[in-house]
Amino acid sequence: MTIGIIGLGLIGGSMGIDLKRRGFADKVLGVETDKVGAEAALRMGLSDEITSFEDCVKRSDIVIVAVPVGTAVKMLPQALDIFREQPEKKQIVIDTCSTKSKVTQCVRYHPLRGRFVATHPMAGTEYSGPWAAEPNLFDGRACIFADAEDSDPAALATIERLYDTLNMRPIYMNSDQHDVHTAYVSHISHVTSFALALTVLEKEKDEKHIFDLASGGFSSTVRLAKSSADMWVPILSQNRDNVLHVIDTYLSKMQEFRDAIADYDEAKITELIHEANRIKKILR
Amino acid sequence: MTIGIIGLGLIGGSMGIDLKRRGFADKVLGVETDKVGAEAALRMGLSDEITSFEDCVKRSDIVIVAVPVGTAVKMLPQALDIFREQPEKKQIVIDTCSTKSKVTQCVRYHPLRGRFVATHPMAGTEYSGPWAAEPNLFDGRACIFADAEDSDPAALATIERLYDTLNMRPIYMNSDQHDVHTAYVSHISHVTSFALALTVLEKEKDEKHIFDLASGGFSSTVRLAKSSADMWVPILSQNRDNVLHVIDTYLSKMQEFRDAIADYDEAKITELIHEANRIKKILR
Repeated sequence: MTIGIIGLGLIGGSMGIDLKRRGFADKVLGVETDKVGAEAALRMGLSDEITSFEDCVKRSDIVIVAVPVGTAVKMLPQALDIFREQPEKKQIVIDTCSTKSKVTQCVRYHPLRGRFVATHPMAGTEYSGPWAAEPNLFDGRACIFADAEDSDPAALATIERLYDTLNMRPIYMNSDQHDVHTAYVSHISHVTSFALALTVLEKEKDEKHIFDLASGGFSSTVRLAKSSADMWVPILSQNRDNVLHVIDTYLSKMQEFRDAIADYDEAKITELIHEANRIKKILR
Repeated sequence: MTIGIIGLGLIGGSMGIDLKRRGFADKVLGVETDKVGAEAALRMGLSDEITSFEDCVKRSDIVIVAVPVGTAVKMLPQALDIFREQPEKKQIVIDTCSTKSKVTQCVRYHPLRGRFVATHPMAGTEYSGPWAAEPNLFDGRACIFADAEDSDPAALATIERLYDTLNMRPIYMNSDQHDVHTAYVSHISHVTSFALALTVLEKEKDEKHIFDLASGGFSSTVRLAKSSADMWVPILSQNRDNVLHVIDTYLSKMQEFRDAIADYDEAKITELIHEANRIKKILR
């Protein structure tokens, strides 16, 4: 099977590695507009060939659109349009975006909607670009299939096999549910990390040595603040309403802590921490 | 040398392991009020013997007070009082607390103030108790010496050797500076993690499956929310003013993000993320 990957970054590149070496792909065609990135991707073996968007879509059995969500909503209908030239080929396109409502909307009324499978492999690191790609990135993680009933059963089954090859657990939900869930378990974490980094960086202007003291706890809390604007601006923008709702809940929790500390209310601080500790039961 | 450790938890227990096996301590005396914890500490080799506070302080050359800061401020003057019974022994007491102003205040006018060295080894995990103790916990991390000029030079030199044995980098500052710095690089991270956990746990009441989706990014951001109330309530309370100042800066950064997202102001979100990305240059 020929797999086309649009965007050979962290997600696309890591898929290229594992789909090829695990035998799912016979050939991987890559599209990467960044020239240095494209050269690096070839040398690192993320794809066998670099080509144009149109050529890649024409020649692939499965096209993986692994670009920031603002670009994905433009490319998905284009890919389906190109599929119409070779109907007998039964081509499939998937995306890997972190928001799903806008992505599914952009092809909702396309005559080939069934050939699109909306997926979100929940894996990644705070790094981006081809140099961030790594083998085994997806092993054991969850992959969300959004609005799976809108895809042709045969296309869906093929993509289920693709993610099974990546050792991912499938989870099915509609795109609105997806966007609520990810606002809670992913998008808010990024916003809080960015804000924490900004807070400490502002202090650093006066206190040059503040980071000498940064402990492991600080590093892990602020790690996501290294994440790229290219990826996160469209996510926060497209998932605006859910993200705002979670931010508001979060701000009210921060305010409860602030008030308890301001009042020296140790009983209340204890209660809040004990409640927060329940996270232990849920996270390994 | 005989080392007495009051509190055989994560910090005290980990010190017991490395000070003994690296030959700094000939004998480690432990004090642990929790009976199960005391038995576990003995079996795990965190100390050679469990004894009472008074007996431990009398027999030790160096007493390490590794208990939550609310208890430490009571124990430090008691230890110095007991030292007066054997002036020829030139005993030393240190603390390992995460706040320093209250700790140094509690012995400021004690006749044996010079025998106290205020230290904060900046290492740890989100776990607590003897079972959280581990070898090599301190290797390569920073240890703050607060108000070092108030300690006798000989006592200070001995404690510098102790932390050198633990492979820690010494950093010197006064206790007020310490409390400002740690509010930024440690205390705020814990508050934001607790608040994040509370936010998601509140949602989970409705959505049982939300945690199926929790990605690595979420886990690392919320990891500190497992931290114990016994340790963190007195820290947040004793360092109230600094912590409140940092929380307020942080809340204003969160509000900037919220406003930019609410306004679909992608240029502003981009600017905030690019600014936050500067953390890359600073953290490995």
